[in-house]
Amino acid sequence: MRHLLTLADLTAAEIERILAIADGLKQRYEQGLREPLLAGRVMALLFEKPSLRTRVSFEAGMVHLGGSSIFLGADTGLGSRETIPDFARTLDKFADIIVIRANRHQSAVELAAHSACPVINGLTDFGHPCQALADFFTVRERLGKLSGQTIAWVGDANNVARSLAVGCGKLGVRMVMATPEAYQFDEPSLAWIRQHSPNVDLSVTTDPVEAVRHATVIYTDVWASMGQESEQATRCRDFAAYQVNSALMRHASRDAVFMHCLPAHRGEEVTDEVIEGPQSIVFQQAANRMHAQKGIVAWLLGVKA
Amino acid sequence: MRHLLTLADLTAAEIERILAIADGLKQRYEQGLREPLLAGRVMALLFEKPSLRTRVSFEAGMVHLGGSSIFLGADTGLGSRETIPDFARTLDKFADIIVIRANRHQSAVELAAHSACPVINGLTDFGHPCQALADFFTVRERLGKLSGQTIAWVGDANNVARSLAVGCGKLGVRMVMATPEAYQFDEPSLAWIRQHSPNVDLSVTTDPVEAVRHATVIYTDVWASMGQESEQATRCRDFAAYQVNSALMRHASRDAVFMHCLPAHRGEEVTDEVIEGPQSIVFQQAANRMHAQKGIVAWLLGVKA
Amino acid sequence: MRHLLTLADLTAAEIERILAIADGLKQRYEQGLREPLLAGRVMALLFEKPSLRTRVSFEAGMVHLGGSSIFLGADTGLGSRETIPDFARTLDKFADIIVIRANRHQSAVELAAHSACPVINGLTDFGHPCQALADFFTVRERLGKLSGQTIAWVGDANNVARSLAVGCGKLGVRMVMATPEAYQFDEPSLAWIRQHSPNVDLSVTTDPVEAVRHATVIYTDVWASMGQESEQATRCRDFAAYQVNSALMRHASRDAVFMHCLPAHRGEEVTDEVIEGPQSIVFQQAANRMHAQKGIVAWLLGVKA
Repeated sequence: MRHLLTLADLTAAEIERILAIADGLKQRYEQGLREPLLAGRVMALLFEKPSLRTRVSFEAGMVHLGGSSIFLGADTGLGSRETIPDFARTLDKFADIIVIRANRHQSAVELAAHSACPVINGLTDFGHPCQALADFFTVRERLGKLSGQTIAWVGDANNVARSLAVGCGKLGVRMVMATPEAYQFDEPSLAWIRQHSPNVDLSVTTDPVEAVRHATVIYTDVWASMGQESEQATRCRDFAAYQVNSALMRHASRDAVFMHCLPAHRGEEVTDEVIEGPQSIVFQQAANRMHAQKGIVAWLLGVKA
Repeated sequence: MRHLLTLADLTAAEIERILAIADGLKQRYEQGLREPLLAGRVMALLFEKPSLRTRVSFEAGMVHLGGSSIFLGADTGLGSRETIPDFARTLDKFADIIVIRANRHQSAVELAAHSACPVINGLTDFGHPCQALADFFTVRERLGKLSGQTIAWVGDANNVARSLAVGCGKLGVRMVMATPEAYQFDEPSLAWIRQHSPNVDLSVTTDPVEAVRHATVIYTDVWASMGQESEQATRCRDFAAYQVNSALMRHASRDAVFMHCLPAHRGEEVTDEVIEGPQSIVFQQAANRMHAQKGIVAWLLGVKA
Repeated sequence: MRHLLTLADLTAAEIERILAIADGLKQRYEQGLREPLLAGRVMALLFEKPSLRTRVSFEAGMVHLGGSSIFLGADTGLGSRETIPDFARTLDKFADIIVIRANRHQSAVELAAHSACPVINGLTDFGHPCQALADFFTVRERLGKLSGQTIAWVGDANNVARSLAVGCGKLGVRMVMATPEAYQFDEPSLAWIRQHSPNVDLSVTTDPVEAVRHATVIYTDVWASMGQESEQATRCRDFAAYQVNSALMRHASRDAVFMHCLPAHRGEEVTDEVIEGPQSIVFQQAANRMHAQKGIVAWLLGVKA
């Protein structure tokens, strides 16, 4: 039984396989084909936090493939009304695959440990592997190949950054992070990334200009992630010099693309000019959430796609 | 890209076309056919307010036609977690069609302006075009034809009344409103109706008896719409003389039908006697929400139905 | 029009028929078949209380059979935004079958009385017939036959116990309840059980050891059901001697099975040792919720399954 809790769960070859399945499904979808490869199959979405992109992209993807989904929100009482192992051993009787968005990564790990069907991490405080896979899919689609690219991550060393970093190491992508010292990866995170991606080429700076200078991808995210709203004011001050704006973009290559996992706080981590500008590919990136996730689901369920 | 935000968006011929599609789908449905015309298609419902009829009629209609829907409630954070244009440009990547129930009509307009897929107004403070189309569908089904009918609207000049008025003008239906002076259409509303329905035959009175005397349809709605609950007491007093009861119905033709878009507040705008009486067609009207909306969806998606 | 509000609605032969349909559907499901027997059909779930098992087992079952479901939670306003009869006469226009989880059993009765489509009780304060049917299905699957078995119910004479009791009488199963005096069935409940199951062999004791001694099934449930949370402390004290633990299980046959309708409060009504022990069949029981309910739905809709 395979799960997708972090990108450390996958080899480079497996990532390539998932992206290839996703690519095939996207092409056939764009030709207007909605093949019922998952007819009668059920995805359970177990979400402790709000979601637009992740939820709707998974649910819509299931429909396109003839399947269905059941959305269980925060009121379902994961771990309160019932222990997580009991929850897992009940839900896996009804669902073919489970997507969990959990406050604590450990909840996803525990659910997977007791589930007889595949569990996908749909965002935890630790990682967001579906986002990272969609991002690699988008970079390859846009820039032709992955190996040799350089992603400049401008901002907080958060769950998305952690997922990208471990994936970059597997896929031959360089990653340069421009992050204030207090918000850089802690030692356990760095050790985890290096353990699972020994070849990772990850560098860290406090200078956004240095980070973007040789990058082919400029990537940022909100300064305060879900659950960190109380730190909003402090973080706005600490990250003020890390805004991705036209001035910063002038230091990057004209061919570099701008990415953001959305939702964006315009005027904070990115200006309107940049996110609406010609280098921005953020809505292509959003659309690819669905295509990449179809690849993940088809791969985990062993569907010939 | 066509949307349905108000009935002003449609010509009389287009309304007739939608009603004809709805009629065909209803007939085949009643023969037991559930044709998968929308197999693999996704409707997103984005609802800021509670809903029973609109939500379930759209969702059930999608299922009958082989499609699916994703219901996004008030917690989705439309316009707060993310701007409406960003919301639109994300959702349109995953959904084939969007239904929005918004507190402010402007939200629906803004969503449609940025969406690459059709947007349907599933009720705003300004209008309720799906209700009006279902009502015209029901009147024609019940009374044989639309042109020449007279609708007596007894009550508040609200969103449903506004939608009916502009539609009446297009379809040759007379509309007489019995409404207390303070609750009649304001000038911008009247100007909007006349702009989009230059031939409208709309008269206003404060006398319910006068309104119903020559009507073929007597129509009322709750005195305080969703969001106006704080005005309940005042409105109950101001509308007291506008109750549709047996005494008022005696002034109408015996062949006139009674309509209400539901939910009804029995004992306020209508008595039990009338809503449960032989002239009431309110549940046929409710059922037709689904049939009319199937026509709208099939027409907007260009499905051969 | 048949509904399933309590097991009193069914004859023994009808229960056997439903279990036989469920058995056939389960076998074909386990062979990997997902037959679209309910293609284009809609189940509405109207739930005033939280649910995991009931909700997901019904929704997943519909998907396996090619149908869909619409989940309406507590915010739908059953009986508040709109009367229950109006609710029923609207919902039955859109749905093929309705499952209701209601605070008051009377709401389910009233809904069914006005609905033109079948209504299933998905738990009320009075009964939980779907649970009982799944339990009988599980007992037969596990112990070969129903007649001649003895269920020892250790705990509160609640809705599940009431449903089991009336079913036991119809199916030739003995039921022994070990229940503190203050929590035993009241006279109207006993009269109702005897009225609908004249042959019931139901005995009551305050001694759990006596109850389990000759039982083939040991069954318990939480001490405080949903809605009784305020009585939690009192009940914990009153039921302290009624815990199903290893000491109690030693008085039962080694071949007896342990059942629990879940969620379980480990350390209260049951210990970890017992619920995780070799006699426990609680997750098979949970899985059978889905299979039994598929039988109920197929039977009520008259689908050839």
